[in-house]
Amino acid sequence: MSLIVQKYGGTSVGNPDRIRNVARRILETQRSGNDIVAVVSAMSGVTDNLIKLARQVATSPVERELDMLLATGEQVTIALTAMAIHDLGGHAVSLTGAQAGILTDSVHTRAKIAQLLPKPIHSLLAAGNIVIVAGFQGKTSEGQVTTLGRGGSDLTAIALAAAIQADLCQIFTDVDGVYTCDPRIVKNARKIAEISYDEMLEMASLGSKVMQARSVEFAKKFGVVFEVRSTFNEERGTLVKEATDSMEKVVIRGVSVDRNQAKVTITQVPDKPGTASRIFNQIAAINVNVDTIVQNVSEAGTTDISFTTHADELPKIEKYLDPVVQEIEAKGFTAKGGIAKLSVVGIGMRSHSGVAAKMFEILALAGINIQMISTSEIKISVIIDENRVDEGAKLVHAGFGPQMNLDQ
Amino acid sequence: MSLIVQKYGGTSVGNPDRIRNVARRILETQRSGNDIVAVVSAMSGVTDNLIKLARQVATSPVERELDMLLATGEQVTIALTAMAIHDLGGHAVSLTGAQAGILTDSVHTRAKIAQLLPKPIHSLLAAGNIVIVAGFQGKTSEGQVTTLGRGGSDLTAIALAAAIQADLCQIFTDVDGVYTCDPRIVKNARKIAEISYDEMLEMASLGSKVMQARSVEFAKKFGVVFEVRSTFNEERGTLVKEATDSMEKVVIRGVSVDRNQAKVTITQVPDKPGTASRIFNQIAAINVNVDTIVQNVSEAGTTDISFTTHADELPKIEKYLDPVVQEIEAKGFTAKGGIAKLSVVGIGMRSHSGVAAKMFEILALAGINIQMISTSEIKISVIIDENRVDEGAKLVHAGFGPQMNLDQ
Repeated sequence: MSLIVQKYGGTSVGNPDRIRNVARRILETQRSGNDIVAVVSAMSGVTDNLIKLARQVATSPVERELDMLLATGEQVTIALTAMAIHDLGGHAVSLTGAQAGILTDSVHTRAKIAQLLPKPIHSLLAAGNIVIVAGFQGKTSEGQVTTLGRGGSDLTAIALAAAIQADLCQIFTDVDGVYTCDPRIVKNARKIAEISYDEMLEMASLGSKVMQARSVEFAKKFGVVFEVRSTFNEERGTLVKEATDSMEKVVIRGVSVDRNQAKVTITQVPDKPGTASRIFNQIAAINVNVDTIVQNVSEAGTTDISFTTHADELPKIEKYLDPVVQEIEAKGFTAKGGIAKLSVVGIGMRSHSGVAAKMFEILALAGINIQMISTSEIKISVIIDENRVDEGAKLVHAGFGPQMNLDQ
Repeated sequence: MSLIVQKYGGTSVGNPDRIRNVARRILETQRSGNDIVAVVSAMSGVTDNLIKLARQVATSPVERELDMLLATGEQVTIALTAMAIHDLGGHAVSLTGAQAGILTDSVHTRAKIAQLLPKPIHSLLAAGNIVIVAGFQGKTSEGQVTTLGRGGSDLTAIALAAAIQADLCQIFTDVDGVYTCDPRIVKNARKIAEISYDEMLEMASLGSKVMQARSVEFAKKFGVVFEVRSTFNEERGTLVKEATDSMEKVVIRGVSVDRNQAKVTITQVPDKPGTASRIFNQIAAINVNVDTIVQNVSEAGTTDISFTTHADELPKIEKYLDPVVQEIEAKGFTAKGGIAKLSVVGIGMRSHSGVAAKMFEILALAGINIQMISTSEIKISVIIDENRVDEGAKLVHAGFGPQMNLDQ
């Protein structure tokens, strides 16, 4: 007998039929001889509707009350899921985040889990119940309702799996698992059977569609092995775990594409200590999320500093960057959208040289111009024109095919 | 400075604009120098939608989970109301029933309030906050979410007013107050300024539109004076309180009409002890709510027993009453709809004779046939054809006009 945590996302519980399907899956897992705790999200669309309602009563809804409001979304799903399980002849008890003992700090709308007191869960499991826990929510030590922010339900599942020492944590979602590349771009992209936490974190575009980085980081920190798989079929998904020796043998785990990027270049920045920190402090102050930053070796006392960000941030940058540029006495800045980031990811590349060279060569042969480069120990990213990124992804995926074991 | 409890029903908070209106009213009450606790219901339609969802996932939703589900309705409203108050520059904190210290028994979907621990409310008020409490819900001593059943939000308001010793309890709803008769029937019906708890309880059709009997009974038990008034205008409503001497001077407080009644007569019931109890035990067992029961003096060893019920109950009666009739060896039964109950109510009639005689005379002069009569100390009811009840109500209202102080 195993103790299993399952998590079902908003699409998986998106309507009454789907909730019944999830109830059936949960019940089958129990009837196969397992203890089961299921974490569920709000039905898809519900959270957006609640936020819309909030905006209709208040221009800037106060965060404590936004949490009180949004927490109802998951509360509806836990109740419906538990009812559906009863209707199928099982025994289930729903718990809000607060009832499940999920204690958080008091930072409303983006609270961090501080402690889990899973005694009520253990008692209910011992009495033969399936336990259905509301994802995304918790309470402060003073009993205030909090929510965990984006991807919060995954975090609830991973944290619960750690706290109750589950044998397995399954993240059910609307995709089959993590692929070597987006199958809509690369037709022969293949589902990855096992991936390390670090690779999952670096597979930005592929990974983030499935799961937010903070949940992966939490799983890594507490050593929670989890499987990402589809609610809508019975296939095995992708197992995310600590790196193993066999993983290292695969040079490239996958090819990742981030669209809708924008590149901002601040030109002729005086080359003196503290300038970069002043720039990026100011950018943080206007709440722009920066991705890649590149600064070339400076010549003649000035340098160009470039960074990429999401294209949605462009209006804010165009509105607020000028004072910063003047303050640091740079010449000016250019900002343009229409670019994308293409990355290859793999812990195997640590022990294999020439990965970067090969990637650049593939792109050069196709005449795709590389505008920026950034690398980490397990990832190489290039910024290219967005309208060539699909072609680039296909070529790179094909070029690294043998090293991705695609030909096995 | 007064401590005021206000309750706003589902129609009063039925959309974002109305919630903002309620927020404004609450804030004005505070700014006039009062401490205020507001109890709110689910937005109109929300509870019905949740029940519909429940029926879509389970044929017979388990009650614990139904409570978990339904409680979200009020939780949405408290959050939105508190947000709207903040948006208008006030300070409000929302509390679920559980957070407000409303402890109930563990009878899910129709829990009774067992105890109120209003310490959190007092602390929040002392800090200058408006407190917004979810109506209709509480928790058991084990922390399970419960709901109080129909009219539960009124009950929450009355119980809170009692527990925090409020100076005033205002029930805001979509009617102006309690009228001497339904103004749609009797054009010159007048709003009643003050009414006793007992009269309110007996004003079945008028009263129940405004408030369930259990809330009035609760208010009576704990001596909570409350005002029923409209959310949509600034007029004073009807004050409901213990009977006073001045109330006794008014013979008739109002005329009440219950439509859609049905009359069931069981014929030639053997006249022996225990028969009536067997009949009504069986009727209770098939979940039919009985209103008036009349049994005439028996002759020749048998008697006819008649009772009225809501017309909606007729199919159940036609389906299940036969075995009962056979068991008690009665001849048979007749059941027919299309009747209505017309009542005059007033604590003053205790000390005035001739009220019944006058009512019967008024109806007789108009040729309206009385099919059944039942009386209590402060109410006289007659069952007549439904298609003549409006006419009867007008005539009786006019006839008792002087004794209702309508001519003052």
